[in-house]
Amino acid sequence: MNNFMFYSPTEFVFGKDTELQTGALVKKFHGTKALIVYGGGSVVKSGLLNKVKQSLDEAGIAHIELGGIQPNPTDPKVYEGIELGRRENVDFLLPVGGGSVIDTAKAIAAGIPYEGDFWDFFIGKAIPQAALRIGVVLTIPAAGSEGSGNSVITKVNGLKKLSLRTPEVLRPAFAVMNPEVTYTLPAWQTASGVTDMMAHIMERYFTNTTDTEVTDRLGEGTLKAIIKEARIVMKEPHNYDARANIMWAGTIAHNGICGTGCEEDWASHFMEHEISALYDVTHGAGLAVIFPAWLTYMADHNVGKVAQFAERVWDVPSSADLKAVALEGIARFKAFLHEIGMPVTLKELGIEHPDIDLLVAHLHENKGELVGNYVRLDRQASRTIYEIANGSTNF
Amino acid sequence: MNNFMFYSPTEFVFGKDTELQTGALVKKFHGTKALIVYGGGSVVKSGLLNKVKQSLDEAGIAHIELGGIQPNPTDPKVYEGIELGRRENVDFLLPVGGGSVIDTAKAIAAGIPYEGDFWDFFIGKAIPQAALRIGVVLTIPAAGSEGSGNSVITKVNGLKKLSLRTPEVLRPAFAVMNPEVTYTLPAWQTASGVTDMMAHIMERYFTNTTDTEVTDRLGEGTLKAIIKEARIVMKEPHNYDARANIMWAGTIAHNGICGTGCEEDWASHFMEHEISALYDVTHGAGLAVIFPAWLTYMADHNVGKVAQFAERVWDVPSSADLKAVALEGIARFKAFLHEIGMPVTLKELGIEHPDIDLLVAHLHENKGELVGNYVRLDRQASRTIYEIANGSTNF
Repeated sequence: MNNFMFYSPTEFVFGKDTELQTGALVKKFHGTKALIVYGGGSVVKSGLLNKVKQSLDEAGIAHIELGGIQPNPTDPKVYEGIELGRRENVDFLLPVGGGSVIDTAKAIAAGIPYEGDFWDFFIGKAIPQAALRIGVVLTIPAAGSEGSGNSVITKVNGLKKLSLRTPEVLRPAFAVMNPEVTYTLPAWQTASGVTDMMAHIMERYFTNTTDTEVTDRLGEGTLKAIIKEARIVMKEPHNYDARANIMWAGTIAHNGICGTGCEEDWASHFMEHEISALYDVTHGAGLAVIFPAWLTYMADHNVGKVAQFAERVWDVPSSADLKAVALEGIARFKAFLHEIGMPVTLKELGIEHPDIDLLVAHLHENKGELVGNYVRLDRQASRTIYEIANGSTNF
Repeated sequence: MNNFMFYSPTEFVFGKDTELQTGALVKKFHGTKALIVYGGGSVVKSGLLNKVKQSLDEAGIAHIELGGIQPNPTDPKVYEGIELGRRENVDFLLPVGGGSVIDTAKAIAAGIPYEGDFWDFFIGKAIPQAALRIGVVLTIPAAGSEGSGNSVITKVNGLKKLSLRTPEVLRPAFAVMNPEVTYTLPAWQTASGVTDMMAHIMERYFTNTTDTEVTDRLGEGTLKAIIKEARIVMKEPHNYDARANIMWAGTIAHNGICGTGCEEDWASHFMEHEISALYDVTHGAGLAVIFPAWLTYMADHNVGKVAQFAERVWDVPSSADLKAVALEGIARFKAFLHEIGMPVTLKELGIEHPDIDLLVAHLHENKGELVGNYVRLDRQASRTIYEIANGSTNF
């Protein structure tokens, strides 16, 4: 087990009607004027935004709004938010939405007190030293951004989708999580969220660090719970307990607890970021295509943990033939993804003729010549994985 | 799943040589003068206390000391610490030790700014509104106090062992956790710690709240990891990775994550507190006696979750005969406890003639006529469990 620091100071307020506590929570964390950030009209139509604003009013918190954040959020809305927040002297960011909305709010929170261009943080030119405080009202369980210090933003000019990871400065002070607000999520979005949270665990789980039994078991257990509850939720979108388990799993998957003491991987995420930057697909659906392809490559190049994953998460019987165990686990994972309506090839994702040359080029331009840790992927390896995702069996 | 709040803001700094960061961490959390609290001579002999003091000196943090805290810590040391801390104007509590030392420091931290008697907090007469900040250097993985807002203190006058649970005010700001400092723990103390952390998970796991799959899986997975690593650690006390897994499991077991959304039980802990208050036994060893007895009673009175525990944690094959499954799981649990050197009856714990009348009377005087939640125990039920612990098979 490696040395680690685990710090998850977010106050998670979970359950029915918890959005009514938003104002009191902003006040508890010393906010006086909040910039509410949201996406499309669903939080307006559902009445959630109104409930949040009423709760702010009751707590005496002033508020202004920035709506219209899109999936795979881009830099223009961040610049707009920074301008607006500075002009209006806000001291608190309040995203009401999913990962795209939260990540935009985080970039704004770091950008407001920074004299330079906020994009500096995403290209590694600067490290955020301070940020406005952030409180989240979560509507989509997927990205885990409510419990992480991370943000992912796409630069429109150049289609660079980059992530910023901070140990603490961008961690939300609180996250309000009412599973009922997820009842109306479309099936596609629900399933994409499920895939994303599974991927967040797996990016940490596939490690060469040995003797991380506690962390392994936390990840495997959460994956098993997600698999069970996702099957229920796809059939019964209004099942409170299944929605609640999925929502809480999304946070556990990404607040860091499932990676304690491990060297993490993250190659699949980086590979998917190139796909969604180029083809604007849903991140989780892109991961449903990339992760099985990545695992298939790993069955040949570093089979150990893939076999453990197959045995402990997918109940594949043990065998001395680790590759066979691994491949059966991957087959069960793909069958599960199909069952919840996810694609497992680029074609099923709607990309008939992927430009693999360009994906490989962008990946290594953005992330260096070697990507990931479980196996460090060079251009040949990442090309092979994109080709597996494209249906190739020649590897 | 029930509504819940989960807030674990402690910064866990885990791994080799982390004690050297103590001074910087106290400074980060705005301490300027620390009261170091410790137990016997082991932290002196091992050189740990010196390393901590040197780290404080290097960070420019003033410090004074209060040593001599005993297991099952009592109120006189708390009063002494409050007096000393006030007189010397300390603004930070720095326990270097295990649960007894940390719990004493917490009571001092809450007592210093409080005008009344600190014992008010433990008898429910007052709720702590403020406390000095606490940072922990952990030496015994067991109580989980490094990641909890709880403290357990025994009043010498009347032998009342009572616990105080706060959602946040007593949560340590940081916890420094170096598994190497646990190499020299005696086998008895290691095994007692293992039992205590297992009990912390089980007190949360045995619930009538349904559909808590994520939480169940986190608890079951952590228990499985503890069982595996404890077997290694008992044979190889200097195995770093096994010590590290056990140490981290002790925190996970008690920082609240394994109880999210559940009505918790805690009857076994309360029953054990009466035993250790009366007979001054090691808390974990007392739990090794009480918990199997409690489970045996539950196999007859609320078998569901006991059977799930048997199947998922102890790999007992499924069967329609849930009671048989449950009893086999309890048998495997007891065999494991014997394997690591723990007692499973009061006699094995060294109490030949327990005063069960007095234990029952104290339990219900301190905790009310009905204790616990999984099955609410009246005097007859708690008597039966103490009798099972005493070897009785007439139930």
